[in-house]
Amino acid sequence: MVSERQPGGGGGSARVAPLSGRTVLDFGTALAGPVCATLLGEFGADVIKIERPRFGDPLRGYGPAIEGQPAWWLIEGRNKRSITLDLRRPAGQDLARRLIGTADVLVENFRPGTMDGWGLGYPDLREQFPRLVYVSVSGFGQHGPYGDWPAYDRVAQGMSGFTYLNGFPDRPPVRPGVGVTDYSTAVFAALGAMLALYERDAQGSGRGQQVDVALYESQLRMFHFFLPAFERLGFLPERAGNFNPAMVPAESFLSADGTWITLAVGTDRIFAALAQVMDRPELATDPRFIDNKHRVENHEAIHGLVRAWVAEHRADEVLALLRGAGVPAGPIYTVADIYKDEHFRQRGSVTTVSDRTLGDITMQGVIPQLSSTPGRITTTGPALGEHNEDIYGGVLGLGRDELARLAEAGII
Amino acid sequence: MVSERQPGGGGGSARVAPLSGRTVLDFGTALAGPVCATLLGEFGADVIKIERPRFGDPLRGYGPAIEGQPAWWLIEGRNKRSITLDLRRPAGQDLARRLIGTADVLVENFRPGTMDGWGLGYPDLREQFPRLVYVSVSGFGQHGPYGDWPAYDRVAQGMSGFTYLNGFPDRPPVRPGVGVTDYSTAVFAALGAMLALYERDAQGSGRGQQVDVALYESQLRMFHFFLPAFERLGFLPERAGNFNPAMVPAESFLSADGTWITLAVGTDRIFAALAQVMDRPELATDPRFIDNKHRVENHEAIHGLVRAWVAEHRADEVLALLRGAGVPAGPIYTVADIYKDEHFRQRGSVTTVSDRTLGDITMQGVIPQLSSTPGRITTTGPALGEHNEDIYGGVLGLGRDELARLAEAGII
Repeated sequence: MVSERQPGGGGGSARVAPLSGRTVLDFGTALAGPVCATLLGEFGADVIKIERPRFGDPLRGYGPAIEGQPAWWLIEGRNKRSITLDLRRPAGQDLARRLIGTADVLVENFRPGTMDGWGLGYPDLREQFPRLVYVSVSGFGQHGPYGDWPAYDRVAQGMSGFTYLNGFPDRPPVRPGVGVTDYSTAVFAALGAMLALYERDAQGSGRGQQVDVALYESQLRMFHFFLPAFERLGFLPERAGNFNPAMVPAESFLSADGTWITLAVGTDRIFAALAQVMDRPELATDPRFIDNKHRVENHEAIHGLVRAWVAEHRADEVLALLRGAGVPAGPIYTVADIYKDEHFRQRGSVTTVSDRTLGDITMQGVIPQLSSTPGRITTTGPALGEHNEDIYGGVLGLGRDELARLAEAGII
Repeated sequence: MVSERQPGGGGGSARVAPLSGRTVLDFGTALAGPVCATLLGEFGADVIKIERPRFGDPLRGYGPAIEGQPAWWLIEGRNKRSITLDLRRPAGQDLARRLIGTADVLVENFRPGTMDGWGLGYPDLREQFPRLVYVSVSGFGQHGPYGDWPAYDRVAQGMSGFTYLNGFPDRPPVRPGVGVTDYSTAVFAALGAMLALYERDAQGSGRGQQVDVALYESQLRMFHFFLPAFERLGFLPERAGNFNPAMVPAESFLSADGTWITLAVGTDRIFAALAQVMDRPELATDPRFIDNKHRVENHEAIHGLVRAWVAEHRADEVLALLRGAGVPAGPIYTVADIYKDEHFRQRGSVTTVSDRTLGDITMQGVIPQLSSTPGRITTTGPALGEHNEDIYGGVLGLGRDELARLAEAGII
């Protein structure tokens, strides 16, 4: 990440992080809500994570732990300060309202109606806190017939149209191994928060609003041209495995040394280059493969030839040949490949963060990369309630005795 | 979408769209760059699409056309004004610079170095246009060893770790049927643009910067806990089809009437509810299925039982039973299902936009939903160069004769 060192001109004052001075309250629980807050915290917001006493964000219990510290939490809790607070009790709700009075953004992803039940819904807060940006993430949104249905990623993804098209025609629709719907929703939620903050602070309304983000909608936004094509042309897309009629050949191929690679032939020129590196230049003029239309018709034949060729070579040989010839190609990376890739490290897409007890921990970096005010990771995910004194004492001004009483009563 | 009608208090002035008065130049070509600009345009930015004379954005050629109008372009060109401009020629580059002088945000997704070759790279522009936010989308980013590699979605996705984990253990890694990497990158790019604008206008630096967004990085950001778990625990995730060890049973099941449904059992209480609606209450106390650990060990047995039960019923029956019992479940929707779903229509996740020649066209709506300044769709994707007179005449003040000369020379 190239950091801009205050070039001449401009006001001369040092530039601050985009969200410097802004406070985000993260009431979210795994996964989309907390990740939205993480993204905002990477760009300078002070993120206070509100967690249920004793339990904490369920994200702390997902996936493996490293010396007792949950790996996922180390990442998605980064830069945050953690406090405990029982929102189910009136004294907890009162403290929540006091904290909300200090905040710019609130993020929550409870089932719709839950925050309202605690007196912390947007209708309860908007008059008292007109500047508040209230980000609500849910499976099916804050209104509409399905509003209060439980919000499981797999269910929302199924209804978004994504799952039906993922996988092979002779196999069931398949859920991906990476939670794209949860994560994409988190990015949409962060975008919504920024739009609302910009309207408040740069357009000058001085007022907040609610951002309503639904898991199924974030995924549905990516549904290509399928709705108008269905409506007007009766087009009904089906699962097609790796087959993409816009580009043939394009597939996953296994090399002689057991590495999956992929390549994608987008033009006849690229196909000729592929035929050349395969040492089969005659394929480029073979009537079966003369253009994409014919290659689609004969996709099994051409994919079979490429599969056999890749299977005879080591992956590094094949990729060097393909890249040298200008054929878009690359390995299908495992986590081990990603871990050791030099490009990923140089750019900071993979980075290390110092953890107090674990030392330097490798994790994905800050995305996107900003040239003048780049995002930062300062800490890994905190311990549950690690910052109770900081926040309740330092921000709300509660004394030690009061903190002790609240802790004993299980409010914090 | 509940629109807020200026409740009492506040400045009293009507609130404007978040990006009202901001201009975005969309130099992108299919897909991530243009979609970033679409998202900004939905929230009030004036988006000017710059297209190559005669060719236009290749997105106009992707997927089916409806009465000669490409379905995808109708969606991702919405709200935009289109002008033609040949950036390969100095006269075109001069006009581009004049347009850039009027803009807040520039979005481009050429291969790194391409805009520089035209004198339109960020280093060429930053001094002359210090307020410009310059969003660069690419496969592998603007710097680093892979910086100039061609940027195909499938290749970047393969290197992000997503593809390796998508699909079945006995089948090759599979590309999803929906371009999640391209779309997620577009959302990250829009988030980056908003962060940069907020820093410029609300933090008051008055200065722009470059936002560097890479396809592979946007997808890698979603890579769960895999990097630290690999580093410290040697954890190597593999493709597992629909199997998720955190929740068993959870799968795709086919109903008697040929509809795929999904369900997800996250707790023992939910499992007991499932056993009840299956009319097999004894399963809840069966030692093989007594908790998730045992259900994981016996996942084939329990998935087999659920599969057989679902196969005996109509999907609507099964889903009514499951929802009534509080078991998270839903259909795996096809485009036809999405098209007719009432919730999707009521929320505006699916909406209609009036096209000049096609009439009302159904497409995905604006995501996310903002309560006080909701996004809007005013027009479908424009014809190539439809707004040449508007922009070159109205914005740059070129006369009709000059426009005619530029058109004749093929500059516009």
